[in-house]
Amino acid sequence: MSVPLKNDRFLRALRREPVDRTPVWLMRQAGRYLPEYRATRAGAGSFLAMAKNPELACEVTLQPLRRFPLDAAILFSDILTIPDAMGLGLHFADGEGPKFERPVRDAAAIARLGVPDMETELRYVMDAVRTIRRELDGQVPLIGFSGSPWTLACYMVEGGGSKEYGRIKAMALNDPAALHALLSVNTDAVIAYLAAQRAAGAQALQVFDTWGGVLSPSMYREFSLPYLTRIARELDRGEGDARTPLILFGKGNAPHLEALAASGCEAVGVDWTIDLEEAVHRVGGKVALQGNLDPAVLYGAPDAIREQVREVLDSYAAGNGGSREGHVFNLGHGMSPDMDPAHVGALVEAVHELSARG
Amino acid sequence: MSVPLKNDRFLRALRREPVDRTPVWLMRQAGRYLPEYRATRAGAGSFLAMAKNPELACEVTLQPLRRFPLDAAILFSDILTIPDAMGLGLHFADGEGPKFERPVRDAAAIARLGVPDMETELRYVMDAVRTIRRELDGQVPLIGFSGSPWTLACYMVEGGGSKEYGRIKAMALNDPAALHALLSVNTDAVIAYLAAQRAAGAQALQVFDTWGGVLSPSMYREFSLPYLTRIARELDRGEGDARTPLILFGKGNAPHLEALAASGCEAVGVDWTIDLEEAVHRVGGKVALQGNLDPAVLYGAPDAIREQVREVLDSYAAGNGGSREGHVFNLGHGMSPDMDPAHVGALVEAVHELSARG
Repeated sequence: MSVPLKNDRFLRALRREPVDRTPVWLMRQAGRYLPEYRATRAGAGSFLAMAKNPELACEVTLQPLRRFPLDAAILFSDILTIPDAMGLGLHFADGEGPKFERPVRDAAAIARLGVPDMETELRYVMDAVRTIRRELDGQVPLIGFSGSPWTLACYMVEGGGSKEYGRIKAMALNDPAALHALLSVNTDAVIAYLAAQRAAGAQALQVFDTWGGVLSPSMYREFSLPYLTRIARELDRGEGDARTPLILFGKGNAPHLEALAASGCEAVGVDWTIDLEEAVHRVGGKVALQGNLDPAVLYGAPDAIREQVREVLDSYAAGNGGSREGHVFNLGHGMSPDMDPAHVGALVEAVHELSARG
Repeated sequence: MSVPLKNDRFLRALRREPVDRTPVWLMRQAGRYLPEYRATRAGAGSFLAMAKNPELACEVTLQPLRRFPLDAAILFSDILTIPDAMGLGLHFADGEGPKFERPVRDAAAIARLGVPDMETELRYVMDAVRTIRRELDGQVPLIGFSGSPWTLACYMVEGGGSKEYGRIKAMALNDPAALHALLSVNTDAVIAYLAAQRAAGAQALQVFDTWGGVLSPSMYREFSLPYLTRIARELDRGEGDARTPLILFGKGNAPHLEALAASGCEAVGVDWTIDLEEAVHRVGGKVALQGNLDPAVLYGAPDAIREQVREVLDSYAAGNGGSREGHVFNLGHGMSPDMDPAHVGALVEAVHELSARG
């Protein structure tokens, strides 16, 4: 049914197979730094209206690919679609981050949560995946994604973004059984969500554990890692070359790279606070690595961006016995609205030029 | 001249000498979580008016010691006194963090900066140190402090707090010579500032590299570490038992513990994202360690706080051949205004009880 991929660098790198150049995509590559994104959003009226409309989600997903020779597309959606479908009431106040009208703060509220139905309550996401796959027409692979169980729980308990994570950490200390119940239902939902995205056409899957790094090591090992591992083990994603690779990205996950590499995932995404050379040693050849340029490097001039790209590429190769295989180039975190599209072009060009094999 | 110390646990632990219990103090132990602090601040009219008045700074420094058997006092002051004295115009907008009226954004602005005179432009800080020493009357040692050259530079270039550090990172990439000039004058000022605090009576000194952790390892090694090392090497702090110990604290400094331990400082303060067991191995017995309870643990119930305190104490001992010597208990970051003073009491009691020797 599906057309053959014209560019499979990204999927080959995730399988640690040889490629002609290191593939590159950028977290939040579809976003406010692009004037065409701002125009689409203005037309939609709101961020959520855009994210919930499959045609508009498809449009903004494809926008960066029209400008830059990126090696993958990523579904445009919100990280909080699952708790929204669970009934928490997602909304965005002007100039602020996401908020929930009905946060979950105790065992009773958690007991009422259930896994949403993917083809009804989250149908708009699956429709977006199907639409994007059709419109991509095999140009590059499409990445589906979800927030991690812990990261979703942070927003669900705090009611929005947080600086201290005081409520959820208090729950972890005072009522760990309630938090485990929340993480468990979140994990069931994430697995169902990623499976449905795969069925709809996603060719790779990424879990964003954006807030795992706010935990102490022992709390990470109790409240984030086991649920990431369960996703990696229980999510059916096929076998061999047809296997849909799973990338576990986490901000601040450097202390846990060995455990993440042993989780059963195909790749680990890391932020910019660790040298890839060290990261390669720590994952011990078990998985591919994705990352890890500091996104703020995009505020630098094109020549400086090129030098920083070279440093990331060379750090990976230095750790990997001189080989660039098994590396997907990315930022260590998402892009920001005030970044210059021309600088993104310089970055993508530098990755491809400086990593060209032979 | 000075009265003998009645409680020297903190200084002995920093020298890695035996003590009867692990000493404990808490970053931001003088602060808005205390009603008496809020009353003093309301009377002063503003935060800066309070910080710049030696009698009021002394009062709020002593407030937590009247409630809790803490083993050290820390000068109440702002981290940004140096750039304020350099003429950048520090002010606090309501409900927001610090702002500078005149941030430095280019080489010309940086070239105009000079080291402030400590006994005139920063006399209010030295007067506060002298007043607090007199009022402490030997109860516990007094810690003086400064922001690190990099952390001061972040505020000076960004003009206030920042999420991305885009301006200063752009300067690091596009005009590294200008940034090094800024870091150099900041380092000269920090050394003079800490020397003056020591002369005024500070018995230990801490440098807060609050934002060092936002840097990639290679940028940390270029823009933060060398300046911390210069402070550790050039700051005259006496010899033997009379030596004034220097603590280098950094949020996110875990990747750099070996280098920090080799800097010449007496102790390294770490945040809660690393197990102390690993931190002890990484510093290799060269320095004392300070930390590292997640401050959010104070949102937990007293029993949970006690268990988390036990975990931190035991993690240090596990790394240190079973010995608790050379450990100063602290949080991994500062306290928050919505924390419960009763929980602070539970924490301090737990540290002393669970670490009692013999």
